[in-house]
Amino acid sequence: MEQNRALFVLINGKPENRISALDRGLHYGDGLFETISVINSNPCLWQNHISRLLHGCARLNIPAPDPGQLLAECRSVSESNERCVVKIIVTRGEGGSGYLPPQSATPQRIVYSMPWPERPHSWWEKGVKTRICSTRLGSMPALAGMKHLNRLPHVMARAEWSDPDIAEGVMLDAHDRVIEGTMSNIFMCKDGSLYTPDLSENGVAGVMQGVVAEVANELNIPLHITDITPDMLRQSDGVFLTNSVIGIWPVNEVAGRMFDPLAIDQELVVQVMERGFSGHDQQL
Amino acid sequence: MEQNRALFVLINGKPENRISALDRGLHYGDGLFETISVINSNPCLWQNHISRLLHGCARLNIPAPDPGQLLAECRSVSESNERCVVKIIVTRGEGGSGYLPPQSATPQRIVYSMPWPERPHSWWEKGVKTRICSTRLGSMPALAGMKHLNRLPHVMARAEWSDPDIAEGVMLDAHDRVIEGTMSNIFMCKDGSLYTPDLSENGVAGVMQGVVAEVANELNIPLHITDITPDMLRQSDGVFLTNSVIGIWPVNEVAGRMFDPLAIDQELVVQVMERGFSGHDQQL
Repeated sequence: MEQNRALFVLINGKPENRISALDRGLHYGDGLFETISVINSNPCLWQNHISRLLHGCARLNIPAPDPGQLLAECRSVSESNERCVVKIIVTRGEGGSGYLPPQSATPQRIVYSMPWPERPHSWWEKGVKTRICSTRLGSMPALAGMKHLNRLPHVMARAEWSDPDIAEGVMLDAHDRVIEGTMSNIFMCKDGSLYTPDLSENGVAGVMQGVVAEVANELNIPLHITDITPDMLRQSDGVFLTNSVIGIWPVNEVAGRMFDPLAIDQELVVQVMERGFSGHDQQL
Repeated sequence: MEQNRALFVLINGKPENRISALDRGLHYGDGLFETISVINSNPCLWQNHISRLLHGCARLNIPAPDPGQLLAECRSVSESNERCVVKIIVTRGEGGSGYLPPQSATPQRIVYSMPWPERPHSWWEKGVKTRICSTRLGSMPALAGMKHLNRLPHVMARAEWSDPDIAEGVMLDAHDRVIEGTMSNIFMCKDGSLYTPDLSENGVAGVMQGVVAEVANELNIPLHITDITPDMLRQSDGVFLTNSVIGIWPVNEVAGRMFDPLAIDQELVVQVMERGFSGHDQQL
């Protein structure tokens, strides 16, 4: 289960596996990351990942990395792997005075590959068991949506269980609203419509969540962004989780209720998985 | 103003200035820190700092560092400096599966010294100008009080102003309650009593804040922990800020109101500064 193991690391384009102990990414979590499925050296949903990363850099006022350079590095670290996961971290680098960022930052790029995580096929076919975490997400509109490096709430939520049969934990905010999984976004199906939480106060705007929205639109499935409580999950027809590495996991169990994975529109599932993992669907 | 410059860095006790790019401190902010005034190689308020650090490790389930080892490292990096600031970072190290921490972690210790920050004397004598930040702190009881590495809200708050005459920014929560300064705790004086915000939902339980509580108790000054709004600050007799490097800064201006620094009990100020910076007040 030690899946953080790196196969190949590049820092600012050079084979290297250490960074400065004074980097603001370490000191403050002053940076962003992306986790990308790479199939036959093609980073899936590249444009979506790079667009979120650049948008995050703009919000944090971190000079943006060059997408072409990142793409080359992403391919370089994943070479000779049929499929693997690539993580990109961009930090603001060193400098500044305490929390005050330096006037001209020297951002650091860390790009590395990890083995593809092996998980039971049944998690896609029959669905996954989940739990509701007791660690709550705070409301932080200034950070909401970004995939930034302040992830301690998610670490604490994930540390709440060790049962390997539980695939994911659902995180709520202080008002008992469902926000996201520790590493995924969440959708609920009810009477032919899709529902997903409002992420304007917290949570990560997932790339695969975006693909679901896109496909739902094409299939004329109404998608509502709204407050969702655990009770609403319980009373729904079906629930599923998304991220860039899993695609879609139907939820088999959440908040004490069992679900039929087939309650989820199967055309939606097929098209999201196809678009999410074809690895050659976009102009690079 | 580039005060993050390191004089001397030790990592796990060895002269070294880089850490693994896979460290969870970088990836998730999965760790803690302390910022300590060191005078003639004596780390001020050492027991208070180490006690907060160990308490944080226990809450995050990070194996605790050896205090004796940390003290030796702290002295080693500050040798030959009459006064300097030492920062200690303890991370959970590498490993785990995504957010899930490894079953047996190998924490990393980073200990380094920085030059003493030079600031105008008037900031202690006449008080400092402050502003109210627009970046709000979220409610995260699971993290409240700890000096953890998830500091992006503070970075964003500090980036709101560049005027060097503004010494500090005051951060509010989503309910317009004053929580802390970006790098300090806040107190308000009113009718002979002291008031400081409740930090059970967010904020850092400051070591110097603890010294103020201790001295106030000895001087029979009532200290109330309560909700404080910017309006209450405006209507108070005086406001001051505390941290381990500044001790006490009277606030000269906050939320559009000017204050007389002498409205703060001067015996309290003298005793807090003495206890905070004597550097030999505790059994080491």
